[in-house]
Amino acid sequence: MSQNAPNLEELAQLVNARLIKAIDASINRVATLRDATDQGISFYNNTRYLHDLKSTQAGAVILRAEHAADCPTSALIVDDPYHAYAVIASHLHPRDLAPKSIHPTAIIAADAKLGADVAIGAYAVIHEGANIGAGTEIGSGCSIGKGAIIGANGWLADNVSIGAHCQIGDNSIIHPGVVIGADGFGFAPGGGSWQKIPQLGRVCIGDDVEIGANSTLDRGTLDDTVVEDGVKIDNLVHIGHNSRIGTATIIAGCTVVAGSTTIGKNCIIGGATAITGHINIADGVTLMGMTGVTGSIREAGVYASPLPAQPVKDWRRNTVRYTQLDEVFRRVKSLERELENLKELEALALHQAS
Amino acid sequence: MSQNAPNLEELAQLVNARLIKAIDASINRVATLRDATDQGISFYNNTRYLHDLKSTQAGAVILRAEHAADCPTSALIVDDPYHAYAVIASHLHPRDLAPKSIHPTAIIAADAKLGADVAIGAYAVIHEGANIGAGTEIGSGCSIGKGAIIGANGWLADNVSIGAHCQIGDNSIIHPGVVIGADGFGFAPGGGSWQKIPQLGRVCIGDDVEIGANSTLDRGTLDDTVVEDGVKIDNLVHIGHNSRIGTATIIAGCTVVAGSTTIGKNCIIGGATAITGHINIADGVTLMGMTGVTGSIREAGVYASPLPAQPVKDWRRNTVRYTQLDEVFRRVKSLERELENLKELEALALHQAS
Amino acid sequence: MSQNAPNLEELAQLVNARLIKAIDASINRVATLRDATDQGISFYNNTRYLHDLKSTQAGAVILRAEHAADCPTSALIVDDPYHAYAVIASHLHPRDLAPKSIHPTAIIAADAKLGADVAIGAYAVIHEGANIGAGTEIGSGCSIGKGAIIGANGWLADNVSIGAHCQIGDNSIIHPGVVIGADGFGFAPGGGSWQKIPQLGRVCIGDDVEIGANSTLDRGTLDDTVVEDGVKIDNLVHIGHNSRIGTATIIAGCTVVAGSTTIGKNCIIGGATAITGHINIADGVTLMGMTGVTGSIREAGVYASPLPAQPVKDWRRNTVRYTQLDEVFRRVKSLERELENLKELEALALHQAS
Repeated sequence: MSQNAPNLEELAQLVNARLIKAIDASINRVATLRDATDQGISFYNNTRYLHDLKSTQAGAVILRAEHAADCPTSALIVDDPYHAYAVIASHLHPRDLAPKSIHPTAIIAADAKLGADVAIGAYAVIHEGANIGAGTEIGSGCSIGKGAIIGANGWLADNVSIGAHCQIGDNSIIHPGVVIGADGFGFAPGGGSWQKIPQLGRVCIGDDVEIGANSTLDRGTLDDTVVEDGVKIDNLVHIGHNSRIGTATIIAGCTVVAGSTTIGKNCIIGGATAITGHINIADGVTLMGMTGVTGSIREAGVYASPLPAQPVKDWRRNTVRYTQLDEVFRRVKSLERELENLKELEALALHQAS
Repeated sequence: MSQNAPNLEELAQLVNARLIKAIDASINRVATLRDATDQGISFYNNTRYLHDLKSTQAGAVILRAEHAADCPTSALIVDDPYHAYAVIASHLHPRDLAPKSIHPTAIIAADAKLGADVAIGAYAVIHEGANIGAGTEIGSGCSIGKGAIIGANGWLADNVSIGAHCQIGDNSIIHPGVVIGADGFGFAPGGGSWQKIPQLGRVCIGDDVEIGANSTLDRGTLDDTVVEDGVKIDNLVHIGHNSRIGTATIIAGCTVVAGSTTIGKNCIIGGATAITGHINIADGVTLMGMTGVTGSIREAGVYASPLPAQPVKDWRRNTVRYTQLDEVFRRVKSLERELENLKELEALALHQAS
Repeated sequence: MSQNAPNLEELAQLVNARLIKAIDASINRVATLRDATDQGISFYNNTRYLHDLKSTQAGAVILRAEHAADCPTSALIVDDPYHAYAVIASHLHPRDLAPKSIHPTAIIAADAKLGADVAIGAYAVIHEGANIGAGTEIGSGCSIGKGAIIGANGWLADNVSIGAHCQIGDNSIIHPGVVIGADGFGFAPGGGSWQKIPQLGRVCIGDDVEIGANSTLDRGTLDDTVVEDGVKIDNLVHIGHNSRIGTATIIAGCTVVAGSTTIGKNCIIGGATAITGHINIADGVTLMGMTGVTGSIREAGVYASPLPAQPVKDWRRNTVRYTQLDEVFRRVKSLERELENLKELEALALHQAS
């Protein structure tokens, strides 16, 4: 909860809302329509919740003009209630900042550079030549590699590992257990074993990026692995070496992007998706969850491939049939041919009979 | 191995077994039928291993009455040998407990509360207001967030990260690298970028829960993410924000449960399964491994969707055919129609001809 | 970059190359054909890059004899340019070794054994009876369990967790966040809950193994989980308890191998693949990415199962059709039968008409 509760006018200004039925509310938190008290602000975006709107106890509700009549309390009228809600929620509930201090147990190389108001947690290790931007918070147990550069006003949570010479822009949030800059997976076969290929590139991450817990982004082989500005990556996502993720693309959990693949800008990648290496995905592509991408996608649009769960008896039958798919096409083709023959014979028979 | 070896009567009592052909064995470990010596106890549950049973050197074997005649040594007769084995194995091989002490390098906030006989490992960090229940062991490098509540007799292994205000019940086991309470993946689109939505809920985990290495459970947006009593989660599993996992449900490795999904009680979720967000899965649902769940499942039962691996030549043909599936149905329908026409003409021809 | 640049003769000897058009180059790095300067060595393996070869500024290029004529600079002639490149890159760019010292904050049990020239990072914890081989480097925040044995000349990066009594061979590389030796996922059902089965085995890892960031390898139940020599495992891979991975097999990111599965030697497992438990995969099997393996594979060869991403409209139609696959086969069979009948009638009609 925010300490100094803004009044409704302030919140309305924040999101360019038209305020109606304004009451003298002291709003200090966001809440659901159902749970909100008069100190809470909620939003309404889906007519499924009309009943909740009509009976809400919220101090105010963010909604579109068309729904204002159904709102029993103050309303902030906007075009996009969900986005306005996100802005107001961020305003009312800023991140709980760590004290702007260096914990005495943090180990900081003599030549590392720390900006103003940097916070560094217990048992963090900042290696030689690393550079932490002003206002950034480094959690406990983090390891910042040699020469790594972290931008300003960022937040690295606990136990984050940043490899040598990797870069992260401003305002980025890296959740616990993330590993940035481990070696890419590169080996040359030969003589029954695998020869390691040194991974000499970096991971370069832009501004306003968020990366979820325990995700891994590998350093490039010769060039860099690149994550552009505004990218949001969920938990347990793997980004292979030399890949590039375009501006404002969002990637849901447990997705794997293999090496040397370029994903465009403003893509939406569903969870548990697997994207093969050395391909290109155009700007504006949406992939539904659990999709397999085995080749480049050259046009914006929505793509999918998951099979839906079925009762196991049906699944058994249908997957057997799947392995015979080519056969059924051949049988259909053969039927079509025979039917044509038969139709000709038929015409002949009718002709003869007539 | 247990220090003080119980005799067979004690073990039989532990699992309500009927003891036959009792010998004066000093059993101190579990082992396979094949590897056990006279100090080992084994179990027999599958006639595939009949030969191993007949030739076992084990001191005792846990089995069903119907197999007693084949057992050359002492037998503990029970209805469910595997479960009895698990109970006896847990009795003979208790977890190797850490010394009940606080390592001098652990950093513990002045107002954190530690129950009796708590063990805290090196370089662990316990933040303000956290509460650790009696007898619980916290491994090295763990971070316990502000106001987090951990129950009694639990075990958090190394490098576990528990976010602020999250809760874990009694007797729970959290393996290394687990992240509980990172921010859920919530962003509102708008103006070509993504506005972060503060994640204000907690993760609330019940009693007797086990969570595997490097799994991640995100905090809820407004409500909590909930894991009920007795849930078992394997490694590298992701549970999205606001989801709820019902009592005694078990989830195998690398599964992803997207946000706001409710999974019922006593479900069995196979590994590498992907479950989409905002759906409900009924109690007693079993999902085979690698299943994609794209909608609610309303009835108990076994469900599946994975395609089986095929030789790549067959796979290439069949996946091409898969993309033409709708076409083959249309062609079959068209064949059926033409065949009907033809049959009518045929009848006519025969009639004319006769 | 290497400090003392070898001359071309030295590099040629290293990979048994024939050196032609030798210049007095001082090569100190690898680079792409496009980016290399006269101090760089590159390789050419794919005619797609012929233009880059012809215009390269590299000091030398590794290639096959058949392409020597197109090389404007010194050439190292070999049969396998990619492998030779890997060897030379490893030679020119050795890993940036940590100082061979024990950080004063590392906690090392009195009876742990450290070989010569071991490096141990800040805040690492080496438990009782652990044994670290000569020349091995342990990163900051690592935890090495009781009695664990790590071979010589290895590298464990930051925040790696090695469970009690686990073993790792020589020359192995373990990336950040890896968890080796957490409990396998073993529970016996009974009475509406799950009884934990103690996991008493180890994880035993051979020589020359590499394991990617945040991967997890569980200890065996009674026997060990085994990873043989020369295996390479990518990031976020899960290896279940009692599994065995054969020599020189390579496993790409986000793959899950369930428990008690044996994978042969020299297999290539694509990313995001799911392999069920209790099966065998023969030597020399290649699995394309995102393949589901639901049963044993007994012959070497290439196998696959992923469905390719389709435009969502097509996908919707085709997945509905997928759930009706068995039906279409039955309809085709019925058409075939009816067509046969009709052909007989037709023959009869023609006969009557004639």
